[in-house]
Amino acid sequence: MPRIDIEAVPIRTGSIYPEPYASMMKGRSSRRLGAAGGLTQFGVNLVTLEPGAVASLRHAHEREDEFAWVLEGELVLVEDTGETIMHPGDCAAWPCGTGLHHRFENRSAAPARFLVVGTASPDERVSYAEHDFVILREGGETRFLHRDGSPWSGPR
Amino acid sequence: MPRIDIEAVPIRTGSIYPEPYASMMKGRSSRRLGAAGGLTQFGVNLVTLEPGAVASLRHAHEREDEFAWVLEGELVLVEDTGETIMHPGDCAAWPCGTGLHHRFENRSAAPARFLVVGTASPDERVSYAEHDFVILREGGETRFLHRDGSPWSGPR
Repeated sequence: MPRIDIEAVPIRTGSIYPEPYASMMKGRSSRRLGAAGGLTQFGVNLVTLEPGAVASLRHAHEREDEFAWVLEGELVLVEDTGETIMHPGDCAAWPCGTGLHHRFENRSAAPARFLVVGTASPDERVSYAEHDFVILREGGETRFLHRDGSPWSGPR
Repeated sequence: MPRIDIEAVPIRTGSIYPEPYASMMKGRSSRRLGAAGGLTQFGVNLVTLEPGAVASLRHAHEREDEFAWVLEGELVLVEDTGETIMHPGDCAAWPCGTGLHHRFENRSAAPARFLVVGTASPDERVSYAEHDFVILREGGETRFLHRDGSPWSGPR
């Protein structure tokens, strides 16, 4: 297909997280460019973080590779092993299954934008460094769990 | 892993194409960022096209989704259905299996750069609009064929 009309791709806010985590994603929005272009094997999201916003909880994917390219502004990449300041033209990759958690934070006074690519696997397990919370996806169905495998019942 | 040191990622020139197609890729170079970051499920290449260079033969993927984001310069996206001029911040997606062919050309007087993402499938068939040439990959092994399935024996 020809060029994707980015302005015509819906802006998504909110989060699939349950509360209180969903509210922590305030100031984040994204456009699903890959899906808009008909892709099914990987997602490509154009994410905007307002000042103070974060892109996610600090997480690790068990089955899906992830890659990000910074387009605008300044981001802090927070990982289990430390922090890295990133600027436009910087990129990072997170192979699945390492158990290493990461997230982007915008601590600057200006909006920041990045592209993020992730494999679209029907089965996935996402763990979170700072919360007793797991997202499990099996056969396309998503469930929230505690780390011990019990159904998620709120922060503990 | 933290930020990828792009300058440390080897610059690849040349082509997997046989001659005379390989020589047509003169002026194209790329860095395999995804592989440098340890990704195996999809590739992310940072491609530079010098003035007059093209990114590939005009091709279609049977099994691998593809996405591109323009970073610098001006590119012409050539597809079976027409041409589109693309600038930094423009993007396009090509779902696999449509049979629609595409390629980027740099007809400008300045270098152009783009990111291209493609699924890493062990099996793939790439067809070419303008040549009786097919690249077949099965179980990781690559073969060159004519469209009728016979081994490729040169342009005809």
